[in-house]
Amino acid sequence: MTSLRQALFAPQSIAIVGQSDDAGKTTGRPLRYLRQAGFAGRLYPVNPARTTVLGEGAWRSLAALPEIPEHAYILTPADIAIEAVEQCGVMGVKVATLLADGFTEAGELGASRVDRLRSIAARTGIRIVGPSSLGIIDLRSKALITANAAFDEANLPVGGIFAASHSGSMIGALLSRGKARGIAFAGLVSVGNEVDLSLGEICELMLDDSGIDGYLLFLETMRNAQALRRFALGAAAYGKPVLAYKLGRSEAARELAVTHTGALAGEDDVASAFLADCGIARVYTLDALIEGLPLLARVPAAQSRRSRSVGVVTTTGGGAATAVDPLAARGIAIEAASAATLARLDAAGLAVKPARLVDLTLAGTRYDAMKAALDILSTAPEFDLVLCVVGSSARFYPDLAVRPIIDCARSGGKPLAAYLTPEAPDALCALARAGVPSFRTPEACADAIAAALRRRVPSLLSACGEATSPRKAGAVDRVRNARLVDEMEAYNLLKELGIICAPSIALDAGLTTAPDLPFAYPVVVKALATGIAHKSDLGGVVLGVSDAQALLTAIGRIRQSVGERQPGMTLDRVLVQPMVPSLGEVLVGYRLDADVGPLIVVAAGGIFTEIYRDRSLRLAPVDRDAACEMIDEVRGMVALTGYRGRPRGDVDALAAAIVKISRLAGDPSVIEAEINPLIVRPLGQGVVAVDALVRVVR
Amino acid sequence: MTSLRQALFAPQSIAIVGQSDDAGKTTGRPLRYLRQAGFAGRLYPVNPARTTVLGEGAWRSLAALPEIPEHAYILTPADIAIEAVEQCGVMGVKVATLLADGFTEAGELGASRVDRLRSIAARTGIRIVGPSSLGIIDLRSKALITANAAFDEANLPVGGIFAASHSGSMIGALLSRGKARGIAFAGLVSVGNEVDLSLGEICELMLDDSGIDGYLLFLETMRNAQALRRFALGAAAYGKPVLAYKLGRSEAARELAVTHTGALAGEDDVASAFLADCGIARVYTLDALIEGLPLLARVPAAQSRRSRSVGVVTTTGGGAATAVDPLAARGIAIEAASAATLARLDAAGLAVKPARLVDLTLAGTRYDAMKAALDILSTAPEFDLVLCVVGSSARFYPDLAVRPIIDCARSGGKPLAAYLTPEAPDALCALARAGVPSFRTPEACADAIAAALRRRVPSLLSACGEATSPRKAGAVDRVRNARLVDEMEAYNLLKELGIICAPSIALDAGLTTAPDLPFAYPVVVKALATGIAHKSDLGGVVLGVSDAQALLTAIGRIRQSVGERQPGMTLDRVLVQPMVPSLGEVLVGYRLDADVGPLIVVAAGGIFTEIYRDRSLRLAPVDRDAACEMIDEVRGMVALTGYRGRPRGDVDALAAAIVKISRLAGDPSVIEAEINPLIVRPLGQGVVAVDALVRVVR
Repeated sequence: MTSLRQALFAPQSIAIVGQSDDAGKTTGRPLRYLRQAGFAGRLYPVNPARTTVLGEGAWRSLAALPEIPEHAYILTPADIAIEAVEQCGVMGVKVATLLADGFTEAGELGASRVDRLRSIAARTGIRIVGPSSLGIIDLRSKALITANAAFDEANLPVGGIFAASHSGSMIGALLSRGKARGIAFAGLVSVGNEVDLSLGEICELMLDDSGIDGYLLFLETMRNAQALRRFALGAAAYGKPVLAYKLGRSEAARELAVTHTGALAGEDDVASAFLADCGIARVYTLDALIEGLPLLARVPAAQSRRSRSVGVVTTTGGGAATAVDPLAARGIAIEAASAATLARLDAAGLAVKPARLVDLTLAGTRYDAMKAALDILSTAPEFDLVLCVVGSSARFYPDLAVRPIIDCARSGGKPLAAYLTPEAPDALCALARAGVPSFRTPEACADAIAAALRRRVPSLLSACGEATSPRKAGAVDRVRNARLVDEMEAYNLLKELGIICAPSIALDAGLTTAPDLPFAYPVVVKALATGIAHKSDLGGVVLGVSDAQALLTAIGRIRQSVGERQPGMTLDRVLVQPMVPSLGEVLVGYRLDADVGPLIVVAAGGIFTEIYRDRSLRLAPVDRDAACEMIDEVRGMVALTGYRGRPRGDVDALAAAIVKISRLAGDPSVIEAEINPLIVRPLGQGVVAVDALVRVVR
Repeated sequence: MTSLRQALFAPQSIAIVGQSDDAGKTTGRPLRYLRQAGFAGRLYPVNPARTTVLGEGAWRSLAALPEIPEHAYILTPADIAIEAVEQCGVMGVKVATLLADGFTEAGELGASRVDRLRSIAARTGIRIVGPSSLGIIDLRSKALITANAAFDEANLPVGGIFAASHSGSMIGALLSRGKARGIAFAGLVSVGNEVDLSLGEICELMLDDSGIDGYLLFLETMRNAQALRRFALGAAAYGKPVLAYKLGRSEAARELAVTHTGALAGEDDVASAFLADCGIARVYTLDALIEGLPLLARVPAAQSRRSRSVGVVTTTGGGAATAVDPLAARGIAIEAASAATLARLDAAGLAVKPARLVDLTLAGTRYDAMKAALDILSTAPEFDLVLCVVGSSARFYPDLAVRPIIDCARSGGKPLAAYLTPEAPDALCALARAGVPSFRTPEACADAIAAALRRRVPSLLSACGEATSPRKAGAVDRVRNARLVDEMEAYNLLKELGIICAPSIALDAGLTTAPDLPFAYPVVVKALATGIAHKSDLGGVVLGVSDAQALLTAIGRIRQSVGERQPGMTLDRVLVQPMVPSLGEVLVGYRLDADVGPLIVVAAGGIFTEIYRDRSLRLAPVDRDAACEMIDEVRGMVALTGYRGRPRGDVDALAAAIVKISRLAGDPSVIEAEINPLIVRPLGQGVVAVDALVRVVR
C-alpha cells in the first residue's frame, strides 16, 4: 500500500483539529464516529479551549501531540483551517482533510485561500482532501474520518464498493440507502472542492485494492476530467466497473452547482460524451446509482456498436410494463422470444403467448415454471440480458418466483436483472446477497439496464496526449487568447484536412466595376474580415445575387450595413461564392473544451440545431464507425437518409468529413472550427462547406 | 349507500366460487385472506368436489347455498366462470367478480365470451367486475375479496385513499409499498377487462364516500374514457384529488398492453391531454403515484395558465440539486427568494447566499434555523410551494431538520413538500403521519411536484355532450365508414368555420388550352379527387408553375403520374392555387378520437412534425387561451415568434384559426379535418390554409 493511500484510508494515527465537546454539533461527530466504529489507531482530538472532549483527553495544539499524526481532519473555519494545514505540512502530516467552506465557491477571498492552500501543499508536500469535505471513510480499517450524520451507526456493513462524491451529503445517502438494500461499501470519500487531490486521483489510488469490486461516482462537475479519465482507463484495465450519476442536466441545477461548490459546470451532453468515452456508465436516477453496480459487473462493456436486447420473464404483465416503458423510452429494445425459444418453452409445458415478454400468468406463479422459463431465456442466443419481473408473490412467498431467479443466476448463462413489484425488502436483500442485480423501482431498473447495455470499453483513440490535455496545456488561457480568422483562411485550414469547400474568391469591397467570376451566377456575397463571428446579424450576407450589377449593389449594401451595425469597422473585402444546391444542411463543429478536451459535434443544420438541441457529441478524434453513429443519433438526419421518398444525401461523405474535422484534435493551435452549414449533396456527390468559423492561437 | 356500492365494497355475504382447499394456490387465497382480515359477513366457499376447504364447510354449488349472496368472487376458468355468472344472475346475486382470463385479450373466442357475459348482465341485471380481476377490497369493511398475494397480512392499515387499477398485480404493489411509506388505503379494485363495470364507474360509485380523500389510478388504456371523465368531474366537485400513472408511453409498452389485456392503447399524448382536461394529475414514476396524493390535496388545481414556482430550503446543496434537476427537466421553475424574503432571512440571522435555493449549510443543521427559514419561505408571496430537502441528519437526528417541517406545515402557509436524502424510513413515516407530502427519491419528488403544479381545474368547455361522446355515438363504426372529401369540398367546410383558404379553382384535367386564371402566376397544380389522402406520394402536386403553357404541362404530368401510381383511377379534375408566400408552416388538425372524443392538434409543419413529434394536443373545443398555450408548447413555433431577428408571424391569427377548427367538436358528421400546411404570414397578415384533408360521415 502506498503511504499516501495508507494515510488517506488506513492511517495509524489521526488528529481531529477543532473537535468539539458537544456531540450535537457537526464538529462533535468525527471523534464519536471513530470511537463507535472501533477504530484501532491513535486518535488526537485537538481543541485549544479544552483539556477533554467527549470524555477523553484533548490536546491544546497540534504542536503538543506526542507524535506526528498521519492524517488530520480539520474542522475549523477557513482561515484557522489554513493555519492548521500549514502547521501540519511543516510537521510532516501526510494528509489533511478540510471541512470548512469559503474557498472555491467564495469569490476572490475564496480564490486567495485556495492559492494559500496550494502553496502550502507545494512547499511542504502535504496532500489535501477538500475543502468542503465531509470526510473520507474506510469501513475495513474503521477509519470513519467524517462529520456526515449518516455514519452515526455501529457495525456498518463492509462490502466491495468504493464511492466518491463531490457532494458531502451524498456519501451519507449512498451508505444508508445501500444498507437498506443489502449493498455495502469498502470506502467512501467526499472530495469537496478538490483544490489538491481530485476525485479521479483518489479513486486511482484505490485501483489495485483487491477488496474493491467497483466504483460509484456522484459528480457535480467535470473539473478534473483528465484525472477521472486516467482512473477510468485503469478501472477498465482491472476489469472493475464504474457507475456515475451526474448533476446538472438542467440549467437550473448547473447554476446551483456554481453557487454551491464554485464548480463551473459545462454542458451536460459534453459530460455524457466524456463519461461514455471513458467507459463509465451513467445513470439518471439515484436508486440506479445505488443498485446498478452488480449489473455492470455482469454485463461486459461492449466492444462494438451492436445494439443489445433484453428478454423479459414475468408473473405480471402490468408490472413488467412499468419497467418496459422507461426502457423503451431510453431506446432499449425488448426482444420477443425466437421461434426456437418459444418451442423450448412449449416443450417445458409453459403456456405463453408469442409476445414481447414471456408472461407466466397462465402457467401460474410456481417455482418450476419460473425456473424453467429462466433457464430457457438465459441460454437463448437472442438476448443479452434477461429481466425478471415478479408480482405480489415476491412479498410473502419469495420461494415461488424469487428463489428461481437466484438459482438460475448461479448456473451462469446470460446476466439477469430482477424487479419486484410489491414492497419486498427481504426478497430484494436476498437477491442482493446472492449478487443478483435487483431493483426497487421500475424506473431505476430501466435506468441501470440501459446504462449497462450502452456501456462501451473506453476509447483509446481519444486518450488525451499532452498536446490536447486541456488543463495541462492551459486551455482556459488559450481559449481566451484565441483569434477568429477570416472565412477565407478558415477554408484554407479545412482544405488542409481534406474538406471540400465552396469555391470562393475575395473581392475588394471598394470596387466599382464587377470582375469576371470563375463561377456562374447566382452567387452569395459575404463580409470578409477577421473577428466577425455572426455575419448575418450584421447584415453581412446577401444570397441569390444574379448578375454583375446585383453583385455591386450587394457589396454596397453589406459595406453600409456592417459599418452601421459595427461602428468603427470599415469592411475592406467581401467573399463571393456560387450558390450550392442542397439536399440538407448540417453543422459539424470541433472545439477544445476546457474540461474534457477535444470534442466533435454534429447537429441538424439551420435553426433546428438550437430549437431541438438535436446534436451528437464525441471526444475527438473519432473513427468512421463513431461518425456514422453520431449521424444516426441526430434525429433530423433522417431527412437525409431517404425519408418518405426524399432523395438520399451523401451520408458516407458526411461521415468522412466528420472524421477529418475530428483530426483537429492533433493540432493544439486550433481552439474551435465550425462548419455551418456543411451542405449535403445527393448520394455520390459529396458534402461542401459553405461557411466556416475557426479560432486559433497561432 | 347504494345497493350496488354495498354489494361491491361491503357485502353482507360473499360466495367464493372455485375456492381451493390448497392454500398455496391462487384460488386458495380469497377465503383465507377474508378470514385473516376478520370479515364479519357470511362466506360461502363453493367447490363441487369437496365438502370442506381450508378446514371449513364448503358448498357443492351456488344452488345449494342457504341464501342468495350479495357478491360472488368466481375463481374458475373462463367457460365455467360464465356459467357461474349466469347462475348468479338468475339467482339475483348483485355483483360477480371474475378472476379468469381468456376474454378481451383472447381473440375471437374471447370476444364471444365477452358477448355472453354482457348478454347475461343485460338479461339478469347482475353487474360484473373483470374478467381478469384480482379482486375488490374495502379495508374498512374488511371485505378483502382478492387473490392478490400481497394481501396475505393481518391488520392492514386503513386510510383514506381509493385505488383503481387495470393491472391486478399493481393493487398489491400499491398496498404494500404504501404501507412501507405510512400511506394507507380505504379500498382498492383491480378492474380487469371492464366488460361491464368500468374503472370510472366504480370510482364514481365511491364519490360521496366520506372516508375517501383521494384517488389513485393505474391505467393501461383509455378504453372507457367517458366514464373516467364523469368520475373526474365528480371528484373535482367533491374537492377530491385524482392522481394517475398510465402505461404505454412507448410503442413497446403499448404493444404489451394489447397482448396483455386486449386493450387498444392509443397514442400516449392523447391520454395526457385527456387526463389534463379532466383535472387528473399524471405522474410518470411509480413512487410518485404512491406518495403524490398528499401533495395534490394541498396544492389546489390551477384556474389559469399562470406558471407556478417552487422555493427550496435545504441543508444539502448537492442533495437538493438531485431534486431540482428533474424538476427543471419537467419545466418547473425554481424561484430565487425575493429581496424582501432575503431581508427577512437576514433579519432572522440566517446567513444564506442569494441563489436559487436557500442553503442552510452555513447556518448549520438546527431546528431553529430550519423552522425560521421555512416560516419565512412558506409565507413569501413568490412561491406556490416550498420544497424542503434534508441531508444526512434526517436519518438519526430528525429533530434537527425534519421536525421543523412538520411544525411549519401545521401552521398553514404555502404547501410544503419534503425529500430526505438518506435512508430515513422513520422520518418519512412521521412526515406521512403528519400529512406532509414527502418522498423517498428525488425523481418521484420532482415528478409529483410537477404533476401537482400543472394540474388544472377540469375544463367544462370540452365536457362531452351526447353529440360528441365517441362511445355513445358509435364513433368506431363512424370512423370506419367516414368518406374523404375532395380538397375543394374541404375548403368549403373550412370557410364555413371562418378559416381563410388559398384562392382555388378547379379545372377539367382534359383541357387543351389554359383558361385565364383569377390570380397571377406562379401557381400550384394539384390532383383533385375524393379519396386521395397523400397527393404528393402519387405525383399529384406541381409547385411553381409559371405560365399557361407550364400549367398544361403540369396537368398532363399529374394526370399521367396519378394514373400510373393508382391504377384504375382516371383523374378528371385538378385544383389550381396561387403560390402563397410563407413565413412558416403549421399543421392544425381536428379529429374524433374513438376513446377520448374530439381532439385538436397543433404541430410544427413539414417533416419535423414527425421527426421530432413536436406537437400539442387538447380536447376540443378550445378557447383562445388554450390555443395560445398550444402554440407555446410546440417548440418549432419559436421560429415564428421573432426568433433571432426573424420576422414575426401572425400568431394571433393562428390562435384564432385553432379555436375555429376546434369548434368542429360541435359537428358530429366531421371525423377528421387536417390543414397541412396552414401558412403563417407576417404579423397582421393572417394565416391561410393551402392544403386540407377532411373526412365526414354525412
